[in-house]
Amino acid sequence: MNAENFEAACGVIPASYARQAQQGRRRRENLIKSLLSQRRLPDEGWDEETIELFLHELAAMDSNNFVDNVGVGEREARVYSGIVARRHYRMAHGVGRSGDVAASQPKAAGSSLVNSITRRLALDAVRICGFVDAASVLVLPLATGMAITMALLALRQQRKAGRVVVWSRVDQKSCVKSIAAAGLEVEVVEGVLEGDELRTDLPAIEAAVSSREREAPGSVLCVVSTTSCFAPRAPERVVKAPRLCARLGVGHLVNNAYGLQSARTAHKLSKACRRGRVDAVVQSTDKNFMVPVGGSILAAKDPTLIEAVNGMYPGRASSGPVLDLFVTLLAMGAAGLRSLLRQREELLPEMRARLAAVAEARGERLLHTPRNPISLAMTVDKVGASARERTQLGAMLYSRCVSGVRVVSADGPSQKVAGREFRHYGAHHDAYPHSYLTAACAVGLTRPEFEAFAQRLERTLGELAKMRAKGAAAAGAAGA
Amino acid sequence: MNAENFEAACGVIPASYARQAQQGRRRRENLIKSLLSQRRLPDEGWDEETIELFLHELAAMDSNNFVDNVGVGEREARVYSGIVARRHYRMAHGVGRSGDVAASQPKAAGSSLVNSITRRLALDAVRICGFVDAASVLVLPLATGMAITMALLALRQQRKAGRVVVWSRVDQKSCVKSIAAAGLEVEVVEGVLEGDELRTDLPAIEAAVSSREREAPGSVLCVVSTTSCFAPRAPERVVKAPRLCARLGVGHLVNNAYGLQSARTAHKLSKACRRGRVDAVVQSTDKNFMVPVGGSILAAKDPTLIEAVNGMYPGRASSGPVLDLFVTLLAMGAAGLRSLLRQREELLPEMRARLAAVAEARGERLLHTPRNPISLAMTVDKVGASARERTQLGAMLYSRCVSGVRVVSADGPSQKVAGREFRHYGAHHDAYPHSYLTAACAVGLTRPEFEAFAQRLERTLGELAKMRAKGAAAAGAAGA
Amino acid sequence: MNAENFEAACGVIPASYARQAQQGRRRRENLIKSLLSQRRLPDEGWDEETIELFLHELAAMDSNNFVDNVGVGEREARVYSGIVARRHYRMAHGVGRSGDVAASQPKAAGSSLVNSITRRLALDAVRICGFVDAASVLVLPLATGMAITMALLALRQQRKAGRVVVWSRVDQKSCVKSIAAAGLEVEVVEGVLEGDELRTDLPAIEAAVSSREREAPGSVLCVVSTTSCFAPRAPERVVKAPRLCARLGVGHLVNNAYGLQSARTAHKLSKACRRGRVDAVVQSTDKNFMVPVGGSILAAKDPTLIEAVNGMYPGRASSGPVLDLFVTLLAMGAAGLRSLLRQREELLPEMRARLAAVAEARGERLLHTPRNPISLAMTVDKVGASARERTQLGAMLYSRCVSGVRVVSADGPSQKVAGREFRHYGAHHDAYPHSYLTAACAVGLTRPEFEAFAQRLERTLGELAKMRAKGAAAAGAAGA
Amino acid sequence: MNAENFEAACGVIPASYARQAQQGRRRRENLIKSLLSQRRLPDEGWDEETIELFLHELAAMDSNNFVDNVGVGEREARVYSGIVARRHYRMAHGVGRSGDVAASQPKAAGSSLVNSITRRLALDAVRICGFVDAASVLVLPLATGMAITMALLALRQQRKAGRVVVWSRVDQKSCVKSIAAAGLEVEVVEGVLEGDELRTDLPAIEAAVSSREREAPGSVLCVVSTTSCFAPRAPERVVKAPRLCARLGVGHLVNNAYGLQSARTAHKLSKACRRGRVDAVVQSTDKNFMVPVGGSILAAKDPTLIEAVNGMYPGRASSGPVLDLFVTLLAMGAAGLRSLLRQREELLPEMRARLAAVAEARGERLLHTPRNPISLAMTVDKVGASARERTQLGAMLYSRCVSGVRVVSADGPSQKVAGREFRHYGAHHDAYPHSYLTAACAVGLTRPEFEAFAQRLERTLGELAKMRAKGAAAAGAAGA
Repeated sequence: MNAENFEAACGVIPASYARQAQQGRRRRENLIKSLLSQRRLPDEGWDEETIELFLHELAAMDSNNFVDNVGVGEREARVYSGIVARRHYRMAHGVGRSGDVAASQPKAAGSSLVNSITRRLALDAVRICGFVDAASVLVLPLATGMAITMALLALRQQRKAGRVVVWSRVDQKSCVKSIAAAGLEVEVVEGVLEGDELRTDLPAIEAAVSSREREAPGSVLCVVSTTSCFAPRAPERVVKAPRLCARLGVGHLVNNAYGLQSARTAHKLSKACRRGRVDAVVQSTDKNFMVPVGGSILAAKDPTLIEAVNGMYPGRASSGPVLDLFVTLLAMGAAGLRSLLRQREELLPEMRARLAAVAEARGERLLHTPRNPISLAMTVDKVGASARERTQLGAMLYSRCVSGVRVVSADGPSQKVAGREFRHYGAHHDAYPHSYLTAACAVGLTRPEFEAFAQRLERTLGELAKMRAKGAAAAGAAGA
Repeated sequence: MNAENFEAACGVIPASYARQAQQGRRRRENLIKSLLSQRRLPDEGWDEETIELFLHELAAMDSNNFVDNVGVGEREARVYSGIVARRHYRMAHGVGRSGDVAASQPKAAGSSLVNSITRRLALDAVRICGFVDAASVLVLPLATGMAITMALLALRQQRKAGRVVVWSRVDQKSCVKSIAAAGLEVEVVEGVLEGDELRTDLPAIEAAVSSREREAPGSVLCVVSTTSCFAPRAPERVVKAPRLCARLGVGHLVNNAYGLQSARTAHKLSKACRRGRVDAVVQSTDKNFMVPVGGSILAAKDPTLIEAVNGMYPGRASSGPVLDLFVTLLAMGAAGLRSLLRQREELLPEMRARLAAVAEARGERLLHTPRNPISLAMTVDKVGASARERTQLGAMLYSRCVSGVRVVSADGPSQKVAGREFRHYGAHHDAYPHSYLTAACAVGLTRPEFEAFAQRLERTLGELAKMRAKGAAAAGAAGA
Repeated sequence: MNAENFEAACGVIPASYARQAQQGRRRRENLIKSLLSQRRLPDEGWDEETIELFLHELAAMDSNNFVDNVGVGEREARVYSGIVARRHYRMAHGVGRSGDVAASQPKAAGSSLVNSITRRLALDAVRICGFVDAASVLVLPLATGMAITMALLALRQQRKAGRVVVWSRVDQKSCVKSIAAAGLEVEVVEGVLEGDELRTDLPAIEAAVSSREREAPGSVLCVVSTTSCFAPRAPERVVKAPRLCARLGVGHLVNNAYGLQSARTAHKLSKACRRGRVDAVVQSTDKNFMVPVGGSILAAKDPTLIEAVNGMYPGRASSGPVLDLFVTLLAMGAAGLRSLLRQREELLPEMRARLAAVAEARGERLLHTPRNPISLAMTVDKVGASARERTQLGAMLYSRCVSGVRVVSADGPSQKVAGREFRHYGAHHDAYPHSYLTAACAVGLTRPEFEAFAQRLERTLGELAKMRAKGAAAAGAAGA
Repeated sequence: MNAENFEAACGVIPASYARQAQQGRRRRENLIKSLLSQRRLPDEGWDEETIELFLHELAAMDSNNFVDNVGVGEREARVYSGIVARRHYRMAHGVGRSGDVAASQPKAAGSSLVNSITRRLALDAVRICGFVDAASVLVLPLATGMAITMALLALRQQRKAGRVVVWSRVDQKSCVKSIAAAGLEVEVVEGVLEGDELRTDLPAIEAAVSSREREAPGSVLCVVSTTSCFAPRAPERVVKAPRLCARLGVGHLVNNAYGLQSARTAHKLSKACRRGRVDAVVQSTDKNFMVPVGGSILAAKDPTLIEAVNGMYPGRASSGPVLDLFVTLLAMGAAGLRSLLRQREELLPEMRARLAAVAEARGERLLHTPRNPISLAMTVDKVGASARERTQLGAMLYSRCVSGVRVVSADGPSQKVAGREFRHYGAHHDAYPHSYLTAACAVGLTRPEFEAFAQRLERTLGELAKMRAKGAAAAGAAGA
């Protein structure tokens, strides 16, 4: 309510009560004022009431919600269902306009504010995570895969002859698909085994780029590095690869899907931006900031490619992923985000130790993957005699309400992705010497949750062992 | 957002967009301003967005929602469950304070505004319904029965010797119970049959009052009249009864539970207030204004008793019923309320004709009850041979998703209510000559709804007739 | 969804996914099954999703929400506003029916389930709080004051000649008003000062009862004891008073508004029920269970009076307070409730020590009130020279967002409540020797909240001291 | 609740009430059963309660909502903010998986059901709109522009040499941008003027394709036709163009952004699919089905390209646009959708007549554009003397709360879009002979809304005329 209305309220309730209320209200207006004028992530997260009040205020700024609005265009943000209108807080115009996806819309001042401010908050958040050299970000209402496709398409507008992407193997389908969707060719470079860990084969990448460029100069569009991945694969050598790209004069995209939650990874990305070529780093909003799937953040020190993606985006897009991030970052505040990140870093060594104990008790072991700051792997070589038997472990865990465990069998099948055959798909390597399961210490995981996982895993491994023992006995009996 | 924040927004989105948004926002602020300064039911109902925005604004005025609030009292409106907090829009301090139930609370300026304004809106609404002489109202978070009890208790503080209530019989339990709960004695006066209709026996009421007063002067606290009731009972002779009370010097309460929706009844109440004694008229918020059960409105021309109830109410109360009425009246506006009332008046003759047709087709008839403007009754004398068989009709209708039909059998049982025996309880009369069913043309009933009722009733009567025919045939066969 | 629909889902998504989902769903159905069959407070609180799903299920059981429903009664739970419908989860029939306020309604099976189960959950909750001998409870949609009025009215139906209530003074208006509202006379017995504490004068109560009974046998309806009150008043001698009542043959109600949160008080009430006469103990739902204002729980070992109130209640009532308690108790679970109670008990000594330190630093002291387990008081004798100056402290604290502090000045004015004059109203005593402020360690208070209070109090006392010093200097200068 | 729980409820409320409730519940289960087994748009729309209950049921099927779930993956649908969780009904896993964007996710059976069923409902809806030959659809969480980009990228995987898109000019930026984003070249073919209408120059298209193919065989990827556009441009000759494409052996995409709401356009598309080549028709969900911006539907008779897009989509995507369409189509039902479409068709001639009258009164005229079934245009040649003065009309209307009007001046400037210069951008033509304004008769427009527009337009034109007259007088006076 404006000051005039607080005045009017004094005719209804005692003036002193109205004044006190107005003072309380001003406190909230000041939070909004700070946000609009400083455009920074607030230190303390906002309470739900403040956020909801602000969302209602913002909705009231969109023309489709004006009391007397009459719309005679072809898109007037009419919403048929009350359920749908409410879940969008009645902001229905989406984000972006023909100019670019971060542009303000004249019909939708409130939605535009959300969009613009979220971009600023996201920049702050990315820096708080440790990627302090990020200077430009774009929040896309597209998940990581599509965001990489968009970045590749934008990159190609700068390097028209580019048609090859050199990529160090990581067995996540959407990665290869995002390159193929852009109409580009993937040149896969296998990783090398160092101890238990799978690491980037930088010389092979250099060789691949050089050979392709020799054949057809300008044909290598870029290298795509992956900094967040399942153990036992290690994140890409994120400082060395950019130098290589700078030296060879090819583009460089980083698939950092869930790497923002690791301070180490984020700091390395910062260093990489300073010392080599990084056109854009792509990260998922859901995996790093605990929102529903659907958004990503492009970040870089150099704004060129990011602005190119922004300007290239054809038309409007769903405002949902941006709204989710907006609400979430306001609710977290800088302090809340820092605390979440710290909790994850603290939990990691505990989780490592606990999983190692589970492994040892069964004659297995935790794979030694010190460079992977999020994903852990323990061998399951003694669980089952075949890929089929081993994957049963995953199914059993899932039916015990454990989600997210992957079981990879050393003798797993090959698979064709986007037209290319990968051996032992899932293992990131043609011949990884162990079967293993992976579990992630991801942001938001809690100690009790992890402990419950460890116990259910122990129990399930125990049951499988018993079943095998029985089976062996039966087989022995049958054979006798 | 205040003007300062719209200014700040100009740094984020183009200034022209922000200005247009501010203009749109001002339109809503003006709606609120009108409400706070005129305190009248707005002509046009408010849209949901405006109401919700206003509710959030109001919540922000309650101290428990202040960003920095620290509460060290014994009642600080802490709410444990988010579900509960949200359904109350975070207003948790209830209504009233020790002073009176309509008083403002220092800790809860927003809740207090809701409470105060609702009282004004309710007065407007009562007048729009036709009770134009109402000059004072009180919205109680109590349903009709308890509201009558409260009015009786307040009346007794004015007339200490009063211990008898003279009451024309109407077979609704809560009515008798509301008198008994106040610790008073009921003197029941039976109605008289005029044609099909049961009417108030005014001479008998006069006789009852006079006789009791002769025995013990001052012992008759008041007469309680009932103006909304099931056909074939007619509403009380609402203009004559008050004159009688004025002449005899006893109090007069009117139980007008759902009578506000009838313009005729409301106009008569106005007349009654001008010409005789009416201490308070009690009406239900749910039955007249389509809110959930739980509130009532006390109204009168003379504010004495109403202020007495207000001042007598001990402590705080739930704000729920007041909030529901507040939201509903804002959503309706004067125009919406008038339109609802008009629709009901239009539907009544159609419903009467349709029910008469259903009745005739089965050899029954619509009871002639021209004075009852809401409830209709048709005989079901030929349906079943006993009370038990007849009430089966009600059960069958209910299982066909028809609710609200009452079947009253001419040979129904007696019942004891609040210690007193009533013959043929439910029929409002010791010996009503017909069995019948009732249906109401209540506010909010729609034409398609009524038509569906008529069809299901036809079908059910048909099925019962067939069952009886079969039963008779079987009995005949058995007897042969 | 029922089993058939999970089967149908297998035609849309892979059967194994549907099965897993069905298993997850069954887990929730089992929570509901336990609740419906055991009717006990669950050990662990339910998550929001389960509660909301259950509320939607319950709503679907009310006839007004049946897909094909046609209503032709005068009360059909039609709800005009979507906002209102949603905040009640579309349950609009209220609680109770003419029979009694805890009765099931045929039209509203879902609402009735909520009502019935809440009564059981409330009994469990009352026992968990320590009132283990409670055997019967009633949840009333009335706050404490009105609940006491209702209990007094019910008691009078059992003891028709009763018209006096003997009551040990406690300066809360709603208490006296609740007696007056029932049309009864209050006989006030002043407390006695023992050290800093105000205690019940049991001999005086006995004398008052005896004297009144001698004058007019049967005229004393009951004694009303108060077990939760502001320091320096102590809770009533709750075990001795009931014995007295039993011996004298008069009724005994206990106003235990917020006493349930103290294990000591609750245990004493249990003992009192076993050893003496306790007709009913009345407690607030908001103060003990963190729901919005509006409900209360009547509890006793002997169900007589409680069932009388239940049966006497005229008609229906708002379901809001019951729904709030239902949701809250399910969300808490027994474990959550125990944890809240434990936190409060742990915080009490810390709060006492901290407040004592604040007091000492200013030359004041914490009043020694060891028997009051919730409210604390510190002297403010040196703050200001008059009642007016002292109450400024309260206003200053409130404007610094501290709510709930009461400042009572030793020279405060008299006040008339419900027709009776009280000297130094607010102090519970005609001549309490100190000015003081009170603060409560109520359930839900957190450590940071209390610490913020202590700091703001320190600062405010400091400012007042400075202002006084300046004033004195100025006065000195002026006098010089 | 399952049958067992209804049984358990019989121990709490009377069994007959529980049975009736169960019967009511079964009615809703049957609606769900029909949906899951028939996978068709229901005839009658569902009420809000049924939809919300179903959404809660679906959410309960997603593993992140299982009561005992423990997630140790890198993406576990943890949601930080309650506001965000609730607005997604706690379904947070998005849609799609690496396989394809319409695939089911093992962790999210509920979300997957939503996704799968929405695809079926969308197919039904597209057919009800008149595009009866549609046999395959895909709902993309991308607005029209991006959806066209995706379709072009998928088409190029089939026709590797394709790099040119032949396109009949329509001045909407996102159209050109969607082609450029895919890395393709646009060959623009200007329309021809037939009376007031701008029509497709089919011979010029044929010439363009042939010439390009001659130069470089296989280089023309496709023709992109536009079937919904602002008057005075007419929709593409949608039956002839596909035949041409079939004959010439090039692809054919149709940008039917908001054309689905016109039965004529939809029927022509059906015919086009039967008689010529249509790889995919792209339509917006917001413009045709009244949901917030963010989704589109790809439809075709031949599923090849649609399945290619589905399979090419890299990774997951926001479930928001799909959820919105799901809820909306369930709420509409087939009957609701038909009724909306009919209302629009009925309003069109009225709007045409009304706008013609407004025009004539000002010496302007309605442009004769009989082939455009949605957008209307009236000349504003006499409004202002320059482009700048004319566009003031648009600004004035917008500040009077009319949104969606476009004013196009005959002397408007050129503009560069995606690197290409367009003369008189906005007019779809290098030299359109009139200045005009456009207004659309879009689905959801109401009669009162349109009438308000006409009146505000009249008033604004009047004001502008007065201002001009004054200006002329002043100029005359100055000149005299």
